[in-house]
Amino acid sequence: MAIISPSRRLRRTPFSDGVEAAGVKAYTVYNRMLLPTVFESVEADYRHLKDHVQIWDVAVERQVELRGPDAGRLMQMLTPRDLRRMLPGQCYYVPIVDETGGMLNDPVAVKLSEDRWWISIADSDLLLWVKGIANGYRLDVLVDEPDVSPLAIQGPKSDDLLARVFGDRVRDIRFFKFDMFEFEGQDLAIARSGYSKQGGFEIYVENSEIGMPLWNALFAAGEDLNVRAGCPNGIERIEGGLLSYGNDMTDDNTPHECGLGRFCDTQTAIGCIGRDALLRVAKEGPVQQVRAISIGGDPVPGCDRPWPLYAGGKKRGQVTSAAWSPDFKTNVSIGMVRMTHWDEGTELEVETPEGMRPAVVHETFWI
Amino acid sequence: MAIISPSRRLRRTPFSDGVEAAGVKAYTVYNRMLLPTVFESVEADYRHLKDHVQIWDVAVERQVELRGPDAGRLMQMLTPRDLRRMLPGQCYYVPIVDETGGMLNDPVAVKLSEDRWWISIADSDLLLWVKGIANGYRLDVLVDEPDVSPLAIQGPKSDDLLARVFGDRVRDIRFFKFDMFEFEGQDLAIARSGYSKQGGFEIYVENSEIGMPLWNALFAAGEDLNVRAGCPNGIERIEGGLLSYGNDMTDDNTPHECGLGRFCDTQTAIGCIGRDALLRVAKEGPVQQVRAISIGGDPVPGCDRPWPLYAGGKKRGQVTSAAWSPDFKTNVSIGMVRMTHWDEGTELEVETPEGMRPAVVHETFWI
Repeated sequence: MAIISPSRRLRRTPFSDGVEAAGVKAYTVYNRMLLPTVFESVEADYRHLKDHVQIWDVAVERQVELRGPDAGRLMQMLTPRDLRRMLPGQCYYVPIVDETGGMLNDPVAVKLSEDRWWISIADSDLLLWVKGIANGYRLDVLVDEPDVSPLAIQGPKSDDLLARVFGDRVRDIRFFKFDMFEFEGQDLAIARSGYSKQGGFEIYVENSEIGMPLWNALFAAGEDLNVRAGCPNGIERIEGGLLSYGNDMTDDNTPHECGLGRFCDTQTAIGCIGRDALLRVAKEGPVQQVRAISIGGDPVPGCDRPWPLYAGGKKRGQVTSAAWSPDFKTNVSIGMVRMTHWDEGTELEVETPEGMRPAVVHETFWI
Repeated sequence: MAIISPSRRLRRTPFSDGVEAAGVKAYTVYNRMLLPTVFESVEADYRHLKDHVQIWDVAVERQVELRGPDAGRLMQMLTPRDLRRMLPGQCYYVPIVDETGGMLNDPVAVKLSEDRWWISIADSDLLLWVKGIANGYRLDVLVDEPDVSPLAIQGPKSDDLLARVFGDRVRDIRFFKFDMFEFEGQDLAIARSGYSKQGGFEIYVENSEIGMPLWNALFAAGEDLNVRAGCPNGIERIEGGLLSYGNDMTDDNTPHECGLGRFCDTQTAIGCIGRDALLRVAKEGPVQQVRAISIGGDPVPGCDRPWPLYAGGKKRGQVTSAAWSPDFKTNVSIGMVRMTHWDEGTELEVETPEGMRPAVVHETFWI
């Protein structure tokens, strides 16, 4: 268990003081910023997330802001999802692809107005791709990273907690929609979204100065709800099939391989840079795809590198995220499997650091 | 002291098995990859680096490869350094700037041939900027991350160690030049370069498969030279004024602010995307600049966020890297200081987590 060396380069967030006071035990680094991974223990954090409500410092979901007359055009150049019907106030999960159709990121696009968008990114410097494209195509658009740091409220008691701070109107926010609220004089977008299947919200905290006041207000309001500091949970997100860019997919993969074909409208997404490259795979389908995979035996260790999947002595895919699920009493995992072996119930073997284990392919995730 | 959570997203390197066997105690994350930061202790590693020879896993210096007829043109678009006289076999330290003149990276460019370059990057996904520019300007060039992982040999006994494995011809490599050598049938570029002031080489290890065989061959050859696993040292690199992108500079800074004006030929670097934005600052100079700053008192803690610098009660700059220097018996640091206070000997105060300390500006670094 190596420690993490502090440096300015691994950026702190507006909520880091709160995270430390809450006793964070482990971090990862995500978009060159600190992301908590453990408070009490991964298992205890998991139980609490499913039963109560947690506040997550997900400032690492940095925003790429597009502003100007070409903002909408640029946004469509980035993704094979058709954005023509998207309205201000909506959030879309959008695969972002390069000219070969390879995934560069899988962010949530937030349409603030016709000429102003945020892209709430996964772990890659998408800002640099977007700036390069805007410059190369000479688009009339400003591309920048604004002072916006998402704070997530996740868990079954999320509505109750948030209503205490922002009023009952938060209960009316529909899934993947956002509305505007005020905190200490600052307008804030609050969306019903988040990187768990337990329900909740993401507050786009504009202006770092209000980070800790908001953090503290939420904890003060939720004492009797058993509110705690939390973080994206390595077990729950696998049970829910929430992919992690860099873990479960890279720029080698098309959206279709990642099971994100339903977010691609390759025929109609005119202007998308990767459209030509994706037309064929959109029609014919991928030759490998992400699957839920259960792994037999005792709890597996953390998956810090791809674990090969075998059948008949040949490699048929790989597992890229894995954890023991207390609720489902099995090891749950996410992997990429060849089409010859991706059907429900297919039996494979997976090479873990602790030896070969039996594995079974599933067509749906656990939650 | 939080631990680092393992995941595939924090990529291992071809040398990670060796690093772990050598007892790595701490990591940072750099280009979404593990970079060791401590073996015995930062101080003991420092002493050993200055007296002996170390092998560093610097695979995190990922390469951006440019290949094709427009490779040279693209390379010049990226930097205000004039590349017209650069020959194959040379390495140039090149500031990379965006259209506003802001630093996107400070890599070493390696010219393999007229139509093939590697950019050996600091900590940002420069690949995405370069791909975006190549796509937007419709250049005839392939841009990719090849399977190349630098391994550095640093310290006063570097020549002796490397000659034992690759022959005495390594002694003839001049500073920031490279030549080709062979290991187990694989051609490898070896440059006289590295992120220390103790002398040494960087081997551009092409083909991950030979990573551990090469690592082991170097250790076997150097037993009586007291060779050890090491890593960029947080004390020595500050003494030597080696800047760290993300710590001592960001995309807010121009090359001139970073003291890199000598690597800019803004008048003649025709085609550089940031040239227009930099012409004025190149002529008039920056209003703040990087400086060596000594800090009085006991050893300071690690600098995990900018420490403000004050004079007369007003903020005049900030410190971004700091460490106690055993050799110079003072705290050494790197900061950015306003021009009104950047002259040699200027006395300032720095706000550290342990309170205000006296600080003195220096025009040259310690080594």
